[in-house]
Amino acid sequence: MPIPVLTDEHVSQLDYQDVVGWMQGAFQSHAEGTLDAPARVNSKLTQGEFSFTIGAQISPNPCMGFRVYDLAHLSSPTRSEVTAVFDSRDGSLTGIVTGKLLGAVRTGAIGGVAISCLSKSNANILALLGTGLQARTQLRAACAVRHFHEIRVYSRNAANRNAFREEMSEHVPVDLTLVNEPEQAVRDADVVICATTSTQPVIKTSWLKKGVHLNNIGPKFKAAHELPKDTYEQIPLLVTDSLKQLNAFGDTFVLSDTPHHDRIGTLATMLGESATQSQNDQDSSLFISVGLAGTEVVLAQRMFESQLR
Amino acid sequence: MPIPVLTDEHVSQLDYQDVVGWMQGAFQSHAEGTLDAPARVNSKLTQGEFSFTIGAQISPNPCMGFRVYDLAHLSSPTRSEVTAVFDSRDGSLTGIVTGKLLGAVRTGAIGGVAISCLSKSNANILALLGTGLQARTQLRAACAVRHFHEIRVYSRNAANRNAFREEMSEHVPVDLTLVNEPEQAVRDADVVICATTSTQPVIKTSWLKKGVHLNNIGPKFKAAHELPKDTYEQIPLLVTDSLKQLNAFGDTFVLSDTPHHDRIGTLATMLGESATQSQNDQDSSLFISVGLAGTEVVLAQRMFESQLR
Repeated sequence: MPIPVLTDEHVSQLDYQDVVGWMQGAFQSHAEGTLDAPARVNSKLTQGEFSFTIGAQISPNPCMGFRVYDLAHLSSPTRSEVTAVFDSRDGSLTGIVTGKLLGAVRTGAIGGVAISCLSKSNANILALLGTGLQARTQLRAACAVRHFHEIRVYSRNAANRNAFREEMSEHVPVDLTLVNEPEQAVRDADVVICATTSTQPVIKTSWLKKGVHLNNIGPKFKAAHELPKDTYEQIPLLVTDSLKQLNAFGDTFVLSDTPHHDRIGTLATMLGESATQSQNDQDSSLFISVGLAGTEVVLAQRMFESQLR
Repeated sequence: MPIPVLTDEHVSQLDYQDVVGWMQGAFQSHAEGTLDAPARVNSKLTQGEFSFTIGAQISPNPCMGFRVYDLAHLSSPTRSEVTAVFDSRDGSLTGIVTGKLLGAVRTGAIGGVAISCLSKSNANILALLGTGLQARTQLRAACAVRHFHEIRVYSRNAANRNAFREEMSEHVPVDLTLVNEPEQAVRDADVVICATTSTQPVIKTSWLKKGVHLNNIGPKFKAAHELPKDTYEQIPLLVTDSLKQLNAFGDTFVLSDTPHHDRIGTLATMLGESATQSQNDQDSSLFISVGLAGTEVVLAQRMFESQLR
């Protein structure tokens, strides 16, 4: 039997409620210790640089695999990643996913898990900063977990905003409100998704509503950060998907060498706690998205399982 | 256009003269500095351990890629490796090779390059120790570069020897001579290929003919070595395919912490020299095969090029 090779065409047909549920399951496995998620491994070559994220799920279907992408060609329209999944009982190859969507859909769905776990259940207004691929998947996952009545979208470029509204209209429950200034998007928003490539802060902390939840998808380094440093410092609840990956950033992470680094919790832990204790309504939260290894493998594995059904 | 996915069926149809030629080209590129070949990268998981060998060819067709296999499932009959090749001009995926043959055919062909470069051109008798997959590809590559009139095969297990003769008969120019003792194979042989999994020496240095050439494919560690330590020490010409990989073995390599480690040359250098100076007829040589990274990528790239022709 030939090995299944799935492409962006298959990935783009995924239901975001399914994917968010699969990712939530992956975090539960991580909390239970049945998801291996080591920090990623890079290999630099003359004309490119591979980044491998490796992971394994021990149960229910034992599998192991990796996703690889080339850091030197992230802006190439024809670039492709590879995600490969093996059955860890016998080392056989379960299947391969090519293209460039899987990683972004996975990151979007993890953002959805964070919003589901950390934002108010009656969240009404969503602000989205950025209109790239990551913004698309974040928006779709956010709409899979909350019923927003207003969605405001900002990016620097008006043409990008219009194209984004056009393209996303079939995937969101309300018309997107395009705004010219980030402050117009962020003021009074219950959930703020920051998914830009900006190396400078795109918002001010004073704009944020009490009790807001933020997703930080873009740059989070000392030398380049899309959120102001005082946002990281002032928000009481800081959560990431992978402390291992965050620690692998070392000195470059925006909060390294500050006392705030030590108070960052993990999404896996929060998911366990959210069932038993409810958060203070006035507390804001910030999800620092770094990419939990193994989640791409779980997503690909679920796709192969769906194909076989 | 769908991405080409080649399998063991395609790999098994390769012509060994082609593959040895491609590998020879890869070593020439390595000597010229146009083949990236970093040491391999491992990632240990609860239920397996991935080993990635990464490489890139800068010209003529710029490509980069990797081969990955799971060290924990090397004896599983259903295991599969993955080799992926990307175009390093735009990061697009050129193709994927699955199965378990490509690595062994590559290693066999590198053994062929070593025999072609280091053994006497009139080599007459070949001794082969081992009857596994690596022995099969070594034998076929050896026969692609030298006209042996006698080929003697030894392994501990008589049933394995018989099956090996049966299976290899269509690929070798003479009937294989099966022997019960390794000494019967090695005495007077011009070329000795040691491709066993033995952790203890399978030959004695005193059996070796003056001017013999050996390929050491199997264990070469302090704690496990298929050749006696004094073979490594007494043979004047020691050559490997990758000093970087050999150095990555660290203290575990059989010659580490001995003066002999420093006199190991590279096959890439020897290929350059063999054109201009001829070796003393009495000098024996030993090729220590460790797997030059990037050669799997070159082999897969050549296969995709052949497919497109």
